[in-house]
Amino acid sequence: MSYETIIYDVDQYIATISLNRPTRMNAITQEMDRELFDAMQSAESSNDVRVIILTGSGRGFCAGADMSNLSAASGADWSTVDMDELERELLPSHSRADARGDFQKTYSYFPAIEKPIIAAINGASVGLGFVLPLYCDIRFASEKARFGTAFAQRGLIAEHGVSWMLPRIVGLSNALDLLYSARLIDAEEALKMGLVNRVVRHEDLLAEAKEYATLLATTVSPRSLRVIKKQVYNSLFSDLGEAIESANEEMMLSLQCDDFKEGVAHFVEKRPPNFTGN
Amino acid sequence: MSYETIIYDVDQYIATISLNRPTRMNAITQEMDRELFDAMQSAESSNDVRVIILTGSGRGFCAGADMSNLSAASGADWSTVDMDELERELLPSHSRADARGDFQKTYSYFPAIEKPIIAAINGASVGLGFVLPLYCDIRFASEKARFGTAFAQRGLIAEHGVSWMLPRIVGLSNALDLLYSARLIDAEEALKMGLVNRVVRHEDLLAEAKEYATLLATTVSPRSLRVIKKQVYNSLFSDLGEAIESANEEMMLSLQCDDFKEGVAHFVEKRPPNFTGN
Amino acid sequence: MSYETIIYDVDQYIATISLNRPTRMNAITQEMDRELFDAMQSAESSNDVRVIILTGSGRGFCAGADMSNLSAASGADWSTVDMDELERELLPSHSRADARGDFQKTYSYFPAIEKPIIAAINGASVGLGFVLPLYCDIRFASEKARFGTAFAQRGLIAEHGVSWMLPRIVGLSNALDLLYSARLIDAEEALKMGLVNRVVRHEDLLAEAKEYATLLATTVSPRSLRVIKKQVYNSLFSDLGEAIESANEEMMLSLQCDDFKEGVAHFVEKRPPNFTGN
Repeated sequence: MSYETIIYDVDQYIATISLNRPTRMNAITQEMDRELFDAMQSAESSNDVRVIILTGSGRGFCAGADMSNLSAASGADWSTVDMDELERELLPSHSRADARGDFQKTYSYFPAIEKPIIAAINGASVGLGFVLPLYCDIRFASEKARFGTAFAQRGLIAEHGVSWMLPRIVGLSNALDLLYSARLIDAEEALKMGLVNRVVRHEDLLAEAKEYATLLATTVSPRSLRVIKKQVYNSLFSDLGEAIESANEEMMLSLQCDDFKEGVAHFVEKRPPNFTGN
Repeated sequence: MSYETIIYDVDQYIATISLNRPTRMNAITQEMDRELFDAMQSAESSNDVRVIILTGSGRGFCAGADMSNLSAASGADWSTVDMDELERELLPSHSRADARGDFQKTYSYFPAIEKPIIAAINGASVGLGFVLPLYCDIRFASEKARFGTAFAQRGLIAEHGVSWMLPRIVGLSNALDLLYSARLIDAEEALKMGLVNRVVRHEDLLAEAKEYATLLATTVSPRSLRVIKKQVYNSLFSDLGEAIESANEEMMLSLQCDDFKEGVAHFVEKRPPNFTGN
Repeated sequence: MSYETIIYDVDQYIATISLNRPTRMNAITQEMDRELFDAMQSAESSNDVRVIILTGSGRGFCAGADMSNLSAASGADWSTVDMDELERELLPSHSRADARGDFQKTYSYFPAIEKPIIAAINGASVGLGFVLPLYCDIRFASEKARFGTAFAQRGLIAEHGVSWMLPRIVGLSNALDLLYSARLIDAEEALKMGLVNRVVRHEDLLAEAKEYATLLATTVSPRSLRVIKKQVYNSLFSDLGEAIESANEEMMLSLQCDDFKEGVAHFVEKRPPNFTGN
């Protein structure tokens, strides 16, 4: 596939999506939003992909929404700005009609993608660029990564559901600290808060993300990953009793599938598994 | 303003409220409850205040509810105690009728106050004195601070919503540990659990809290803080989809406000911001 | 009591339940499920027990469900397996009809037991053996303990509510990491994630668990523990407002109980308490 603002690459069951406007610190445009949505759908539906990595080209991960239009707007006579056009620009709608309502929105569709998504955060992750990785399942960061919410410094608010996701990842107080102060934190502090799962040497970031992705692509069942991702995210919205009943149904279904038979067989035969995802 | 049991001070956009019964380790009385509620309302409505700090006078932060009456009661013939009077004393009602039901209660009104509240915990924080900071947004602790729930040692229960707030701050298991054992933990252990955001040298506590408060008072939009506080606390009770829809509405509203125009202008002009909160 | 697959021991208010199939790494059978359920009920109803410890005999804690039957099944012609029998084996039903629906299930009945349950994890804790401790209130681990979810390596799914409990203990991203990768983590990493409360030297594990259990058995009110356990677990399913109203009712009830009077008396008289649980 050919994109203008991202790079999409598939190798050994891993799709790597790179935000690719390095001279603009990968600031997000409407086109990038469309292309990212398209690439995620492609990765999801391809049999050659089992895991997705999201990263950035150049020295930044993502500087947030491209503000060039907004800057012009705020300098200009505000009354001349077309608010409907602005709303379309800021709130592009890419709907996953098959997902639960919580996961049909602009960035919240990531959890509806039925494959693991790993963020490999290679540099500055600010504003919308801070929000994007929160919708990924797992976050690896370069020791050079920096994180900042930025919104309160611009007179803006907690955008795109960050007020909901962030407390569930770093706890209530850290979330308020980051959203109130908009201060930049480094990778070490992000690790301590639980904002990222792992911090690695800058030059090893992509290699480590791919090593982990390879673990998922070759040693566990793609069918298990698909069901588990749905179970964990649905459990954010259900009671424990519902989660257990659903798990019991899914367990009985899994027992009749090829991947379960292979899962037991490779264990008994002490050999690497050969899962098909069925 | 003149209070008997607290000190209320405003300086450079920061209101500092000190619990002030140092000879009683700032134990809470009905009067202190009333004065604290009044001071919080004043700080909220004053244009001279952008951030609130809550701390204690003397060597303790707060030893909990003043037990002198209760001690007498338990020694006396229990049948002579007026339970209605006792209930009024233990459950003073300060209602924020404008807030959602969750935030109308005795201490749970803190999250309804539309400005950031920072606890600067200078010493022992026990019983009700342990609960109070949980309703603050951010907690800084002196290295000399000590924390204990105390309730189970008195034959009491998890009071004033601590059973709900504590697991959301330190996780389910740490919450059970602290509530079951009522053991005292030091500042380092509190930091590891996530009970406090930061531990600082005892003599630097108030200075560090004020430095952080100044960051909020001078570099970010008061309007943003107001909206973000509401978003984060409301998100504890909503689904992600609702949080995103509300965020999208709030984002469009923020674009039409002075603080957004100033937020973009100071960034483009590379100068400190001059937010008005409008 | 005499059991085949567990050991049940009561000493100084502490019931210790040991999974006891050491040659099978304490793999869980239907009989073990029944005996564990029975032992938990006994410990709950006995006046000689105030705290419960769950541990494993030999070098492992629990290797999960006994797979011997399943291994045979997957090697055999699958169509000959009696799925109803398999379901009965995998989903034994031990109902706590008195508990809320969330806590009536196979392992989720632990939070309905009205006494603290401490897991003392002495070695490998894998698959179902990983899930079991999540339903305990507090987890101590030997430095030799290892943890793994295993399900995705077998083509299985997030079983018995682990998709719900795990994110509430270690956060969303760590939960996805552990469930996706099924990788084994050691005790130190488990501690960093918050999966266990404390890591101790292997030879001290049971002694440390008992020392903590003794703290609960002798210094705090058994009545308080009973009410607090219910409050904290119910708070996972309620709003803050409901939690506060319930706490206010429970507080007024506690004031009329023996344990409160003793709780104040021993404090005023500066002596160890002598709680009865009434």
